[in-house]
Amino acid sequence: MGEAFGRWKLGPDEELMPLIDYANVACGFHAGDPSIMLKTVRLAKKYGVKVGAHPGLDDIKGFGRREIDVKPEELYAQTLYQVGACKAILEAEGMSLHHVKVHGKLYFMMTRSEAIADAVVRAIASFKVPMFGLSSTLHETSANKYGVPFHPETYVDIDYSPEGQLQPVDFDNLVSVEMIKKRIRSLAETGCGIDTAGAPLPFLFAKQPKGGLKHVPEEAYTICLHGDMPSALENIKGAREGINAAGVNL
Amino acid sequence: MGEAFGRWKLGPDEELMPLIDYANVACGFHAGDPSIMLKTVRLAKKYGVKVGAHPGLDDIKGFGRREIDVKPEELYAQTLYQVGACKAILEAEGMSLHHVKVHGKLYFMMTRSEAIADAVVRAIASFKVPMFGLSSTLHETSANKYGVPFHPETYVDIDYSPEGQLQPVDFDNLVSVEMIKKRIRSLAETGCGIDTAGAPLPFLFAKQPKGGLKHVPEEAYTICLHGDMPSALENIKGAREGINAAGVNL
Amino acid sequence: MGEAFGRWKLGPDEELMPLIDYANVACGFHAGDPSIMLKTVRLAKKYGVKVGAHPGLDDIKGFGRREIDVKPEELYAQTLYQVGACKAILEAEGMSLHHVKVHGKLYFMMTRSEAIADAVVRAIASFKVPMFGLSSTLHETSANKYGVPFHPETYVDIDYSPEGQLQPVDFDNLVSVEMIKKRIRSLAETGCGIDTAGAPLPFLFAKQPKGGLKHVPEEAYTICLHGDMPSALENIKGAREGINAAGVNL
Amino acid sequence: MGEAFGRWKLGPDEELMPLIDYANVACGFHAGDPSIMLKTVRLAKKYGVKVGAHPGLDDIKGFGRREIDVKPEELYAQTLYQVGACKAILEAEGMSLHHVKVHGKLYFMMTRSEAIADAVVRAIASFKVPMFGLSSTLHETSANKYGVPFHPETYVDIDYSPEGQLQPVDFDNLVSVEMIKKRIRSLAETGCGIDTAGAPLPFLFAKQPKGGLKHVPEEAYTICLHGDMPSALENIKGAREGINAAGVNL
Repeated sequence: MGEAFGRWKLGPDEELMPLIDYANVACGFHAGDPSIMLKTVRLAKKYGVKVGAHPGLDDIKGFGRREIDVKPEELYAQTLYQVGACKAILEAEGMSLHHVKVHGKLYFMMTRSEAIADAVVRAIASFKVPMFGLSSTLHETSANKYGVPFHPETYVDIDYSPEGQLQPVDFDNLVSVEMIKKRIRSLAETGCGIDTAGAPLPFLFAKQPKGGLKHVPEEAYTICLHGDMPSALENIKGAREGINAAGVNL
Repeated sequence: MGEAFGRWKLGPDEELMPLIDYANVACGFHAGDPSIMLKTVRLAKKYGVKVGAHPGLDDIKGFGRREIDVKPEELYAQTLYQVGACKAILEAEGMSLHHVKVHGKLYFMMTRSEAIADAVVRAIASFKVPMFGLSSTLHETSANKYGVPFHPETYVDIDYSPEGQLQPVDFDNLVSVEMIKKRIRSLAETGCGIDTAGAPLPFLFAKQPKGGLKHVPEEAYTICLHGDMPSALENIKGAREGINAAGVNL
Repeated sequence: MGEAFGRWKLGPDEELMPLIDYANVACGFHAGDPSIMLKTVRLAKKYGVKVGAHPGLDDIKGFGRREIDVKPEELYAQTLYQVGACKAILEAEGMSLHHVKVHGKLYFMMTRSEAIADAVVRAIASFKVPMFGLSSTLHETSANKYGVPFHPETYVDIDYSPEGQLQPVDFDNLVSVEMIKKRIRSLAETGCGIDTAGAPLPFLFAKQPKGGLKHVPEEAYTICLHGDMPSALENIKGAREGINAAGVNL
Repeated sequence: MGEAFGRWKLGPDEELMPLIDYANVACGFHAGDPSIMLKTVRLAKKYGVKVGAHPGLDDIKGFGRREIDVKPEELYAQTLYQVGACKAILEAEGMSLHHVKVHGKLYFMMTRSEAIADAVVRAIASFKVPMFGLSSTLHETSANKYGVPFHPETYVDIDYSPEGQLQPVDFDNLVSVEMIKKRIRSLAETGCGIDTAGAPLPFLFAKQPKGGLKHVPEEAYTICLHGDMPSALENIKGAREGINAAGVNL
């Protein structure tokens, strides 16, 4: 959320906010700016939505989705900077920082470099809030190392390969609302997603499935959707309907 | 301090830091970036220097010294953002935010617009630290309104007119170290500066001079020098010598 | 046109381009970036649209619509830079620079400061192309001084006061398509716009109306519409219909 | 040259300019801005120095020295943009664009990716000027493909390994002025540099050495020094003395 920039808008935040439980708010490095953050935080407050900081690479022109060769120590400083800025806006408005979810390419750089994962998580640790994010070995290892609770999430508006790899978004062939609902039903019933081959995909965060795929995840996780997709509003409406239909106790 | 940017350096921070008591650290909007802030905070910690956030206009290209038409509400958000970022870096490094001192043109915009002064001070108030700054009616009024302690400061490396107006820096004709020492002696003895005509200048923050110019200021104030002047190092060495010579109890 | 930025889009350029004769292309300072400029230039080429450079203030965050205190000499350099960049992209793609139209606040700063008008027009003069723009005394004086042909334009999607002053855009109360068509009919028949009071407004560029308001403008002028308004597509469709209906020889 | 940015200076350009024959001027993407470019161009004009555009990655914060994942087509547009901007400033000041020399990491990305080399050289080709640069297979192949004359250069203020690989600058152990003079004498006498082992290094651009290392290069080449090194002024003074002493016909 809050992924506008200056004159430019991205995503129907006003309409999405009433439909969600947690908002990851861009912190001005990959998108957003202080005024947009303030507006987004107020919108979250209005609808009782909890806010996480959504720090990214320092790359407005690339929306934080381009690999940039940045040293871990710089990423430590940039994460402190972004999350601190977000926290201050939240607290000035009578809210508090709920979690941190790392954005875009920075997330992926953390899955491949222990030094980068450590640097970012070490920064997050100083805020004493949990991380939300796709489960990955390096993310979870760093989180354990620095004592940061890690809450895994799963996407339902992007595809996973049968190997569990998140696939790049194909803007000409977006995931349908029907598939989103189907995946949520699958999650609720079995703790599995549905991969690109249509087969059930057991998620890493469901560590000890009890009896085949039919299980209840051992720990809480979040379902994540993108606010910047052209189909964001219908996706999130569909996801909400799916959750309500599944009768999940949120 | 910390007014470098990316590849560019400004001011001999390593040499200045041991000579000062408080550092105003640039927060990335008029100068500085997260890595430079981190480095500067660590340097301050090493020398036991207290750190204030030094927020400015969002204008790297103009070093925060150009008037920009920004709405007060945006300045509220930008101040929260910058000070929050600085505070987070300080706390992660085991320090705490000591004060806020507003930078450059943003300071002057606050002296002329009540709405802007209110917006910036309202943001500062949420951090529950005092403000440092040149005394001005609107600054002090807003500070009172939002319950922010205001500690006045005086420059010794820039000239004041006989009317007490701070003069633009003339880089071809910088204030001499001798004058800096003379001004500090004057401050210590009488609470007055020395204006461009060479006459004693009683400062606003010395509100109730007891018996002519010979007085002790009623409240604590700071002596401020610029870290980005070509003569910064000799100026600050001179100022420190002047303070030591005056035997002032800091 | 081309007022997107990085990940962010603004205006349905693909749909607008077939409907216009000239495109003013943002040059990366108030909006746009090299990739967007290239894409826009190729789109213009596809539809036989002539391209003018649309330089603005160096202010992506404010979309070039905020007053910034910049020295005339800097604006001279910034105009050379932007127009030169646009020209190079055009020529590499087999097109040529047709004109220059100054954007947003920079335009208005030129109407109030002779030094700024001179600096910008002196830069434009080096490209040996005409200027398009709202007529103003300082613009036309500078254009004459530096030998730059000045082609006046009139907006039909923004209101003019009875005194001929362009009014700020009211996004909650945009000009209707009907009014746009009515204004074009009025322009074609009498050379007048329609002011906010509904009265005919003779334009400055129609310098010697022959017989009351019923006249044909003495010189060529352009009708300008905004590509970034929410109603841009219907506005420009309406304007094109109005022009066709008026049977104007373009 | 011109690698300052806004308030920040880098390199003693005023003192260097009288000592050189060609200046590579930063174009605002890795360093520089329009005002600095204008100032640098005027300085070059004063001393009869020919100017080449020095385009780099769009990365002010990383000084164009960080790898960024940018698509070739974007680099094509960015090169057109930067070189076109530089050319326009030159022509407005009565000079002309002499050549293009690619900066920093963008240069190295061109040595490893044919698509990137092609994209950048294709942009350069549209200006009909030669390229200056370190010789590399992909650079020269692309230059041939697009009909761009390629003039090789050699550094004397950075080390080469015995395999001819340029070494990263070690700011704590800069090349001495004596070594710079020695390398120039070697170049003048044998067409060879001196590698980190102290052995003669025949350069790629001396393609057909006639009789061992004792040869005269077949084609013109340039000797390149960095304007942003702390030792830049003494380096360039030394290089100039070395060239004068060698009695080379420039």
